[in-house]
Amino acid sequence: MTVTLDQIVARFGGDLIGGGNVAIEGLAPLDRAGAHQLAFLSNPLYLAQVADSGAAAVILSRADFDKLTGHDGRSWIVAPNPYAYFARVAQMFAAAAEPAVVAGVHPSAVVDPSAVVPASASVGPQVVIEAGVRLGERVRIVGNVFIGRGSTIGDDTLIYANATLYHASVIGARCIIHAGAVIGSDGFGFAPDFTAAGGEWVKIPQVGRAVIEDDVEIGASTSIDRGAMADTVIERGCKIDNQVQIGHNVRVGAYTVIAGCAGIAGSSTIGRHCMIGGAVGVAGHVTIGDRVIVTAKSGVSKSIPGPGVYTSAFPAVPNAEWNKNAAIMRNLDKMRDRLRQLEAKVKGLQEK
Amino acid sequence: MTVTLDQIVARFGGDLIGGGNVAIEGLAPLDRAGAHQLAFLSNPLYLAQVADSGAAAVILSRADFDKLTGHDGRSWIVAPNPYAYFARVAQMFAAAAEPAVVAGVHPSAVVDPSAVVPASASVGPQVVIEAGVRLGERVRIVGNVFIGRGSTIGDDTLIYANATLYHASVIGARCIIHAGAVIGSDGFGFAPDFTAAGGEWVKIPQVGRAVIEDDVEIGASTSIDRGAMADTVIERGCKIDNQVQIGHNVRVGAYTVIAGCAGIAGSSTIGRHCMIGGAVGVAGHVTIGDRVIVTAKSGVSKSIPGPGVYTSAFPAVPNAEWNKNAAIMRNLDKMRDRLRQLEAKVKGLQEK
Amino acid sequence: MTVTLDQIVARFGGDLIGGGNVAIEGLAPLDRAGAHQLAFLSNPLYLAQVADSGAAAVILSRADFDKLTGHDGRSWIVAPNPYAYFARVAQMFAAAAEPAVVAGVHPSAVVDPSAVVPASASVGPQVVIEAGVRLGERVRIVGNVFIGRGSTIGDDTLIYANATLYHASVIGARCIIHAGAVIGSDGFGFAPDFTAAGGEWVKIPQVGRAVIEDDVEIGASTSIDRGAMADTVIERGCKIDNQVQIGHNVRVGAYTVIAGCAGIAGSSTIGRHCMIGGAVGVAGHVTIGDRVIVTAKSGVSKSIPGPGVYTSAFPAVPNAEWNKNAAIMRNLDKMRDRLRQLEAKVKGLQEK
Repeated sequence: MTVTLDQIVARFGGDLIGGGNVAIEGLAPLDRAGAHQLAFLSNPLYLAQVADSGAAAVILSRADFDKLTGHDGRSWIVAPNPYAYFARVAQMFAAAAEPAVVAGVHPSAVVDPSAVVPASASVGPQVVIEAGVRLGERVRIVGNVFIGRGSTIGDDTLIYANATLYHASVIGARCIIHAGAVIGSDGFGFAPDFTAAGGEWVKIPQVGRAVIEDDVEIGASTSIDRGAMADTVIERGCKIDNQVQIGHNVRVGAYTVIAGCAGIAGSSTIGRHCMIGGAVGVAGHVTIGDRVIVTAKSGVSKSIPGPGVYTSAFPAVPNAEWNKNAAIMRNLDKMRDRLRQLEAKVKGLQEK
Repeated sequence: MTVTLDQIVARFGGDLIGGGNVAIEGLAPLDRAGAHQLAFLSNPLYLAQVADSGAAAVILSRADFDKLTGHDGRSWIVAPNPYAYFARVAQMFAAAAEPAVVAGVHPSAVVDPSAVVPASASVGPQVVIEAGVRLGERVRIVGNVFIGRGSTIGDDTLIYANATLYHASVIGARCIIHAGAVIGSDGFGFAPDFTAAGGEWVKIPQVGRAVIEDDVEIGASTSIDRGAMADTVIERGCKIDNQVQIGHNVRVGAYTVIAGCAGIAGSSTIGRHCMIGGAVGVAGHVTIGDRVIVTAKSGVSKSIPGPGVYTSAFPAVPNAEWNKNAAIMRNLDKMRDRLRQLEAKVKGLQEK
Repeated sequence: MTVTLDQIVARFGGDLIGGGNVAIEGLAPLDRAGAHQLAFLSNPLYLAQVADSGAAAVILSRADFDKLTGHDGRSWIVAPNPYAYFARVAQMFAAAAEPAVVAGVHPSAVVDPSAVVPASASVGPQVVIEAGVRLGERVRIVGNVFIGRGSTIGDDTLIYANATLYHASVIGARCIIHAGAVIGSDGFGFAPDFTAAGGEWVKIPQVGRAVIEDDVEIGASTSIDRGAMADTVIERGCKIDNQVQIGHNVRVGAYTVIAGCAGIAGSSTIGRHCMIGGAVGVAGHVTIGDRVIVTAKSGVSKSIPGPGVYTSAFPAVPNAEWNKNAAIMRNLDKMRDRLRQLEAKVKGLQEK
């Protein structure tokens, strides 16, 4: 695929400075871009790389453009958000490089006659679609996916191989669900009944749903439980990485991102525009407000009202050093007592 | 589905106080229940909600019933464990709301002729059942499941989509295995052989089995490795959440619950009636006794003999505050040395 | 399967001491081995068990053999690495106990006509193999696996049920990929664009590949993302346990082992011969040198240059004890301030 800078600017906006009849074949970082590639500058730290870049053109902000001491012969696309601009142009090139999706249902797929599958949808091999499922326009289901009865999937959503949707799942438009993800599995709810001899954990039926709104991406092997009585809800625009676990009745606010290996226990609420770091754990029944950042490997055990950055993780240090300090940490109360005794003694000495 | 209170008490026991010819269509929390719904009170904190509840009837303990100042016109089911009672009634309603399971083998399933599949079992589309597998009565295998050769599955067990059982897995009766779970994968065992140039990790064949006893529930995307020489065993009544990893030769005692994202390394033993919190890590070759609670995100690196609550996780606090204290923590030994020096000086001053 | 000690030594090397015409039917630990079993001693701590063992023969090092006070009637295999020797012999017995793999493509598999599948390969039921895929000799694909277009798989590689390879994945020879693993899923990359009202996370297309070199084992439900622009690479001989997450553009050096539930964030590099413990987290964009050991549940947030053992995890202690010390930890700065004040006061007293 080859497009000119003129065509790019016509489609994606921005101000073109310099010649527009320049053929672009793809994107690359500043330090690797060649004469037919478009680079971008989103971090002013790399401003110095611009002059040496072989890129045919550079996407950058007006502020960074004005900082450049000389504007060499290349062309420039000035845009308020060069990184997002780059991403959108990259999407165009990536889409062109992919084989066309063939609409229709593969003969090996098992689709219940009551399911609604538009002609524009693509259902891959070995897929199972149960009764009452409704697929939107241009939905693409890759191979070996299982979609439980009564689920609905919005327009243009893409579901990768070996993913599972339990019955009655609701998936919005333009979502991407990665391989091995599980949506709508039973929440973890049991009533203990050990009064009698023997006894057991009595399962509490999980009759809510998993509801995924529009423009959500869900990573590989991530699991999102259905609600117990109400629904589990992932609001629009959220991005959830791989190996994440989201318990029943959780609500994740719009545009929040959750990095890999995080776990959100049942009935917790996370606000909008939050950033939950990798391997973070959020306890059950807590509420996190909007625009909260929790750094990687931290644990949230109490509600966090407002915006801010929260942490409870230590960085690894040499083992011997760690063990020495960890041993003191486990006896901090004794150290505090010694400090108190000293304070009393010094007070006594001072009063003499 | 509509049942009367009389029918509920006839089936599930308890003492009915008030009219029994009351039609019940489902369950709901006290604050949301309507005139045809049954509510429950399991936590005395919510006693005050009872009077205002619109519920047709309330399940509660004798002690709580006696605490109520007035018993309005509604009916009451007095039972020793209202929460478990609620769960059992909810199961009845949930089962009635589900479509009937159709027994038989879907034509797209691939079932080895040597497998034993009773007429009461249900094998869904795209399932693979290898040679020598034995399914119990009324076993239900949802779509895209793989069951390796020689595995046995007890009566009334339910296996959801895209789950995998490796060869020779043993699953008890009334188990539930959620989507994407993997049972019986190879344990992580290798002998280092780097004496020669090059060298390699030599795989130790994993020839034990994964044995899951009766009434166990295993969450979505959870993995349980087979044993190396002996078996990995999950004893009866255990409940294991999503994204849990259980290594080879582990034994988990009866009725223990393990929350999401926990990991139990190889050859460890966990007692009966334990509660392992979310994202807890248990090192290899440790033994945890009965009725041990490990709180979320803690790490167990040494054996824990008896009952008790164990912890090693910090709650997240504002990042600046954390970083300040974490820096001191990394130099606790210096702080201790300063304390010692001070103690010596004060002793010197006192002896003057 | 029965082999003689002579046959074992002929195949695997080592020095045979004692009779070689001894029939061996399998391997067992020293304390459980019987008259037709071969045991091994790799840890001198167990030297005392040798005399009492019922094993027909024992594999051990020259040093340990020389330490034995008497050499009873049994036979001995002296080898430089008894554990690796044991593993190789065990592999032979395990292979003999497994049913022969039947080459060929199961009729229920869906294999694109453009895929290259040698006659020696085995493709199981319900498998999907997309266009342009190339399988090596004797590759074995178990049931319900999905292999995306253009992927290549080296000779003798084994892929278990319900695993997923995204398009263009490259898998080396003699690899083992366990059930539910996902290779080549999109990395987690989005450009924020919230300048306008509404706004969104703009997806950055992930056009690199996941490249797995020879002799790598990848655990159940582990996910390895494809690169964003360059490739994600797992070098030869790495062993990766279950439930591990590896982000885009990561490079893991040869022979490194990564235990269960670990997560490596995007663009990080891990050296050769490292040992990454269970549930370890490695932040993005860090570099870990060769032969680094990170102990279980630790977090690596900065680069670690060289060999060494690194830690940042506490072991669980009784909850009350932990909470007391954790509260002091959260106020270490106040304790340090009190210490400073005391130091000043004592200095004042000394100068009087």
